[in-house]
Amino acid sequence: MDVFVPFDARDPKSRLAPVLSETERLDFGIALLADVLEVLQSSPHTPRVLSTAPIEAPVPTFVDDRDLTRAVNEVLEVNDPPLAVVMADLGLVTEAAMQKLFAHEADVTLVPGVGGGTTAFLVREPGFRVDFHGCSYQDHRSIARDAELSVATVDSFRLSMDIDEPDDLVEVLVHGEGEAHRWLCDHGFELERAGKHRLAVTREGGN
Amino acid sequence: MDVFVPFDARDPKSRLAPVLSETERLDFGIALLADVLEVLQSSPHTPRVLSTAPIEAPVPTFVDDRDLTRAVNEVLEVNDPPLAVVMADLGLVTEAAMQKLFAHEADVTLVPGVGGGTTAFLVREPGFRVDFHGCSYQDHRSIARDAELSVATVDSFRLSMDIDEPDDLVEVLVHGEGEAHRWLCDHGFELERAGKHRLAVTREGGN
Repeated sequence: MDVFVPFDARDPKSRLAPVLSETERLDFGIALLADVLEVLQSSPHTPRVLSTAPIEAPVPTFVDDRDLTRAVNEVLEVNDPPLAVVMADLGLVTEAAMQKLFAHEADVTLVPGVGGGTTAFLVREPGFRVDFHGCSYQDHRSIARDAELSVATVDSFRLSMDIDEPDDLVEVLVHGEGEAHRWLCDHGFELERAGKHRLAVTREGGN
Repeated sequence: MDVFVPFDARDPKSRLAPVLSETERLDFGIALLADVLEVLQSSPHTPRVLSTAPIEAPVPTFVDDRDLTRAVNEVLEVNDPPLAVVMADLGLVTEAAMQKLFAHEADVTLVPGVGGGTTAFLVREPGFRVDFHGCSYQDHRSIARDAELSVATVDSFRLSMDIDEPDDLVEVLVHGEGEAHRWLCDHGFELERAGKHRLAVTREGGN
């Protein structure tokens, strides 16, 4: 099935501004996107990028400069199900984890994100719409229920952990296996191992 | 098999001090523990609490006032495998998620925690030891490898998400289904829905 991957090429990874320059945020965002696309290209599915501005990508790319909710709802309106939407910043994604999204037969399969978000979903019947403001995971359950669509939820750390904030870089360093992991290592990021609790990242000799 | 649940009864949930009083932290910690124990009691396994101080619990409780690493290594030394260790603060745990820990046949099965930690593990062969300082997930992989033990990893958002910091309360409010969720609602916590990114919690009329 078609899998749409939304990508914000205009202000990518804005919440990483405390640790990355504007150019670096675009580069790192592209590295995260590359990891998601590579996993999808190894699957039986057909990835397509939905970008807010033209970018070079190894798969067909559609440009829609509206906000995420409107752009994804347009995808849902003009394409027949089944189709899936997977966020571009799933820095821990693996083929095995991605398969979990496609394993369910429910009308709508949701992947919750950290902090109440939704990192991916799959629709097998028409009638679903998205709203990425607020607690989108709860809202998406309600929207599906109101449309009398059955809902399944995927329980996967690798799919739920989107990479948005500086502390999330820890997860890419510990668990990532692709471009985004290499990008962070090449740019001087390493784990700060001092604490006895959750780790942070430090950056040394980065360029 | 025996499943040991370490619980810090002396300074529980210390990183929640910005939002909970000392008494509340103990109460909330006990609510989280109750959710973990209830899930384990519904399983074919035998939960046992390993507490730093005497507490009332619905299952056999052992007191060991040493730090987590030493107390768990003592458990590994005096008990024959198979056995498992599950942290007491897995506020999103469900029976289905917990089953994933027991589904693997590897010598050591690890559940990574957010921030490089380890939230649960299961050993089927002797020779494994723990070290909860630093990046314990990576360290536990190394320790197992050095002991020539095979390793499996569980990919579960519900098992990886331990409840340590104020922002983690969002996850309990959104996904929790037990005592800890009820405790937060009863004490005035609710989701702050304003943001378009990850949510926070607010507390109103709490007691």
